[in-house]
Amino acid sequence: MKCNICKAEALVKLRAHNAAFCRDCFLQFFSRQVAKGIEKEHLCTREDRILVAVSGGKDSLSLLYELIHQGYDATGLFIDLGIPVSSQAARRTVEDFCAKHGLRLIVKELVEDGLDIPTVKEAIRRPVCSVCGKLKRHYFNRIAMEEGFTVLATGHNLDDEVARLFSNTLRWDLSYLASDGPLLPAHGRFVRKIKPLWRLTEFETANYAFLTEIEPHIAPCPYSPGASFTTLKGVLQRLEYAMPGRKLDFYQGFIHRGRKGFEHLAQEGGDPLHDCPECGYPTSGEDLCGVCRIRHQVAAFREAQCSAS
Amino acid sequence: MKCNICKAEALVKLRAHNAAFCRDCFLQFFSRQVAKGIEKEHLCTREDRILVAVSGGKDSLSLLYELIHQGYDATGLFIDLGIPVSSQAARRTVEDFCAKHGLRLIVKELVEDGLDIPTVKEAIRRPVCSVCGKLKRHYFNRIAMEEGFTVLATGHNLDDEVARLFSNTLRWDLSYLASDGPLLPAHGRFVRKIKPLWRLTEFETANYAFLTEIEPHIAPCPYSPGASFTTLKGVLQRLEYAMPGRKLDFYQGFIHRGRKGFEHLAQEGGDPLHDCPECGYPTSGEDLCGVCRIRHQVAAFREAQCSAS
Repeated sequence: MKCNICKAEALVKLRAHNAAFCRDCFLQFFSRQVAKGIEKEHLCTREDRILVAVSGGKDSLSLLYELIHQGYDATGLFIDLGIPVSSQAARRTVEDFCAKHGLRLIVKELVEDGLDIPTVKEAIRRPVCSVCGKLKRHYFNRIAMEEGFTVLATGHNLDDEVARLFSNTLRWDLSYLASDGPLLPAHGRFVRKIKPLWRLTEFETANYAFLTEIEPHIAPCPYSPGASFTTLKGVLQRLEYAMPGRKLDFYQGFIHRGRKGFEHLAQEGGDPLHDCPECGYPTSGEDLCGVCRIRHQVAAFREAQCSAS
Repeated sequence: MKCNICKAEALVKLRAHNAAFCRDCFLQFFSRQVAKGIEKEHLCTREDRILVAVSGGKDSLSLLYELIHQGYDATGLFIDLGIPVSSQAARRTVEDFCAKHGLRLIVKELVEDGLDIPTVKEAIRRPVCSVCGKLKRHYFNRIAMEEGFTVLATGHNLDDEVARLFSNTLRWDLSYLASDGPLLPAHGRFVRKIKPLWRLTEFETANYAFLTEIEPHIAPCPYSPGASFTTLKGVLQRLEYAMPGRKLDFYQGFIHRGRKGFEHLAQEGGDPLHDCPECGYPTSGEDLCGVCRIRHQVAAFREAQCSAS
């Protein structure tokens, strides 16, 4: 198998692109796809100050590395969730990676605010995964705003995006469908959010990480055994195998055509946002935002524990 | 395994409905689903004169049989495509079935109009499947209009419907998505079109045909080896296996929520219909309708053959 570009021995075959590449030509292909994804959807410019949420996984580390490589002003943000073993290992991966490449990194420890996941898990009476997601999104946005970043980037790849789009389409969840996509514009105290890897599959980001010698943190979270959307990703993988390129077509068709219908419906209804009276960040609820409600639940739980002892 | 209703030995297990049924209770379940599908979407009433397109397959014969069973005024329509062996066998199946149950049947032979499939296949220079579909849809509508029927019913089941919806969604084909569903209202010289089996899977109609001793014609068309949407049906089957009931949810969610967005977009654009100057039936094209164009192609081909000989 020869590289399509330079005819050297190919290392990576991509059926969706009907192409095979050697190491260097694959890395160029990857860079072009990131650049195309950014330019086509007007995600960001070289004037932006970009905060990149890094978990220690291959996607987010690849994203930070590639943005720097392309000359963007990018800084990593690691949220230390305080999960025993797992958070420490992920943090060390991210810190070592940033030190090795001389990249700026902000670390936020949730334990400082009494909101580390073990504490929250004990206080609430529902699955912790959705709460963990809520906390991370809150701090991503909050730190971006407080530290003067103009945009927050996450490492979601095409498989993540297509699986979520498929899930929302299967349920015809109109409010998600109205705002889904690689760009969520800034709105009040919500910073602009972007997903520059939207054109690249998980297979492609894994190859990129391997070929650039990124060593990601790969231990699963002890509170959540599986990756999200596992079933849907399997179904979509089968579709892609039979019809190479269909995943990217589906996602691109959505952002260029399909979404228009849902945007219109969302304009008709939709909850207006207001500022949370406690933290000041926007929320669609009636009163406190989700994170401040969690904070109160944790405080109430602690108080009950103290009175009981 | 016991029947959920009467506790007799169950014959059919339906994971999507979390139920198992004996023969009689399954037939009642089937009837309820057809009735629900008709009533929920206002497909037709007992005042309608219903023309049921029957191919000889299990779905269309089951549909005709069940509509009669529920007291609807239904008549079968068989289009004899003139395909050697296959059309004769299908026609005999339909004629025997209607004779056995005392059902009214109209047979239209395309050879009368010089449009039998072997002739058309010879004259045109593109795959015959889409032309065959076009001819059938034209004659379904035309015969319904000419014979005073108020509605045309086809035997599309949930698997057919979901596969087509999925295909149109994957491509975000807005014009199809705007009008997809079990009911296409009458419009000018287009009769109302309905799909009363939309709530029932292929597995369920196959069981219904088997348990009511319907003997369908099952030989594949010699011009088309496979069923349509085979890959997508396989992918959706895997999804349904992992998440029972998801196919019906997806389809129902579409007709109740998702479609709204596309209807709005279609109103903005969309080709206006006009009457074909030759046959008088509506077409979105500029001049002759697709069927009259085929008629001209066949005539031109014959003329060329005569001059050559």
